[in-house]
Amino acid sequence: MGSRRQTIEFKNGVYILEAASTAGVKEGEGPLRSEFDAVLTDDRCGEDSWELAQSRMQEDTVRLVLDKANERCENIGCIFSGDLLNQCAGTHYAMRNLDIPFLGLYGACSTMSESLIMAAAYISGGFMEKAIATTSSHFCSAERQFRYPLEYGGQRTPSAQWTVTGCGAMLLSRHQGGAARVTGAAIGKAIDFGVTDVNNMGAAMAPAAADTLTALFSETHTRPEDYDLILTGDLGVVGSDIFTELMMEEGYDIGELHMDCGKMIYDIEAQDVHAGGSGCGCSASVLCGKIYNDLKNKLYDKIIFMATGALMSITELNQGESIPSVAHAVIMERN
Amino acid sequence: MGSRRQTIEFKNGVYILEAASTAGVKEGEGPLRSEFDAVLTDDRCGEDSWELAQSRMQEDTVRLVLDKANERCENIGCIFSGDLLNQCAGTHYAMRNLDIPFLGLYGACSTMSESLIMAAAYISGGFMEKAIATTSSHFCSAERQFRYPLEYGGQRTPSAQWTVTGCGAMLLSRHQGGAARVTGAAIGKAIDFGVTDVNNMGAAMAPAAADTLTALFSETHTRPEDYDLILTGDLGVVGSDIFTELMMEEGYDIGELHMDCGKMIYDIEAQDVHAGGSGCGCSASVLCGKIYNDLKNKLYDKIIFMATGALMSITELNQGESIPSVAHAVIMERN
Repeated sequence: MGSRRQTIEFKNGVYILEAASTAGVKEGEGPLRSEFDAVLTDDRCGEDSWELAQSRMQEDTVRLVLDKANERCENIGCIFSGDLLNQCAGTHYAMRNLDIPFLGLYGACSTMSESLIMAAAYISGGFMEKAIATTSSHFCSAERQFRYPLEYGGQRTPSAQWTVTGCGAMLLSRHQGGAARVTGAAIGKAIDFGVTDVNNMGAAMAPAAADTLTALFSETHTRPEDYDLILTGDLGVVGSDIFTELMMEEGYDIGELHMDCGKMIYDIEAQDVHAGGSGCGCSASVLCGKIYNDLKNKLYDKIIFMATGALMSITELNQGESIPSVAHAVIMERN
Repeated sequence: MGSRRQTIEFKNGVYILEAASTAGVKEGEGPLRSEFDAVLTDDRCGEDSWELAQSRMQEDTVRLVLDKANERCENIGCIFSGDLLNQCAGTHYAMRNLDIPFLGLYGACSTMSESLIMAAAYISGGFMEKAIATTSSHFCSAERQFRYPLEYGGQRTPSAQWTVTGCGAMLLSRHQGGAARVTGAAIGKAIDFGVTDVNNMGAAMAPAAADTLTALFSETHTRPEDYDLILTGDLGVVGSDIFTELMMEEGYDIGELHMDCGKMIYDIEAQDVHAGGSGCGCSASVLCGKIYNDLKNKLYDKIIFMATGALMSITELNQGESIPSVAHAVIMERN
């Protein structure tokens, strides 16, 4: 065994001063409607393309979290962000309108936890006072990039997940305030268990989630019952079952404590979303909406938020390759 | 003015223990041939596709830097990496074979400096002892993704740059050693000056480079003559001219001190590469090859390495949008 640990501790306080969330039309019709700060009335956001609509939503959500915290761009040390579009276009075309230093990330659907780890590390490390973690996804821009043109109306398999139109942003600070603080994290490895089915992302991501969470428990000498919530995003129905089973094999029963953003954001039966939600914006909007509200309302003392990402490339899949995945975990504690 | 600064200082020593570089066949025929650790004899690297060839090159280069430092995967806290391929496929299909925690980045051709800033921040912040910064690009995988199928044989405009087949990796540590240390950085903003010409990346990136370098000089109260080298990558011939002119307008004459990786890696006339090299692997292989060698040979005391990235999306360009760009600067000092 080497000296390396996957878990890191943020010894200097990193406070989540404020959070903001935006949901699309369909997501606003789901069970979490009242938890979002904003629900789109038009998924085009008044823009000429789905890609620009996503950028508009992301820029607006960042401005919203700044407004809610009565903060301005020129006080923010860095914004950490990325998304699912090729060359992270959703993010970049939002960033050019914001006067904030920017470090771009690619973690697919794990981006919300990756961006939180980055922001927390730069603040706790003493490199800046405030930072923003954010990501977004849009059903229409993702669908045509990863699957079929919208007009094609392709049938979906039962294991397929529905890309969420949504965005979340958190403002982190070294100055005390807000509902919760980031106290630790576990950085995931790229894990590939050989899944090649683009319509079964949950199965591809579950082993990465189990790998990271097992490392976190083991290295911090904690167990599931030390946390009030283990929130994954976005394993969906299929991936969640595999994940809890894999954790059981490792000796950890997380059944009661586990929730998954992909299962929470829709009424899965009524809204016909098969295995649930996915996309960077799924866990981002659920975390920055419902979960941050719950932390404000003192429902939890200590939670693990672990967004999971399928690092798949359409080009490589077409060449017969399988899907590497990654999961990063963030420990949050109520102030 | 807000309280925010773009520059950060790495007060705790961050040492570049070792560097490794790989160059493609064409790059190995250029003026830097003897500076690379490895030169490919076949750009396919024995793989079935150009994408897998890029991943093979990146994995091999990471293993090489570990070997050179007599170090093992299981002692590395994190690898920070990304590349130009959609969903950073070049990186991800290398990472799945390495037993190292992984945080994915997207900074287009700025990735080498972004990954160095990340690795330095996590080490200086006390979160890990050792980390790897790496990125790669491959002419054949990039060309068919961003421009035309290779077989098409498209004509290139004089301002077009040639994507380098190459890779660089640096092993950073909190433990003293190696030829140089990372002592500071400046995080860039996404800057969009309205350039829409996909064949003139240099012009799109030059304003971002000028913006970041001006912030660095201003915030650190230094001037060009305080450094022995200002190395940009990959502005190329066209972008370099615009960049030095923009810096002159800001009151900084960098003429004598400035070199650009895109101009250095090829014999531009003889190798018919128009405005020079580009791609994440250009600045990565030049920095980890020639420049690290020069630092070992005590040619420089203090340098600025600033990789520049055009954050362009083919989808958005086809919709008529312009190209946002970013440049991140890293300050390195000889041990």
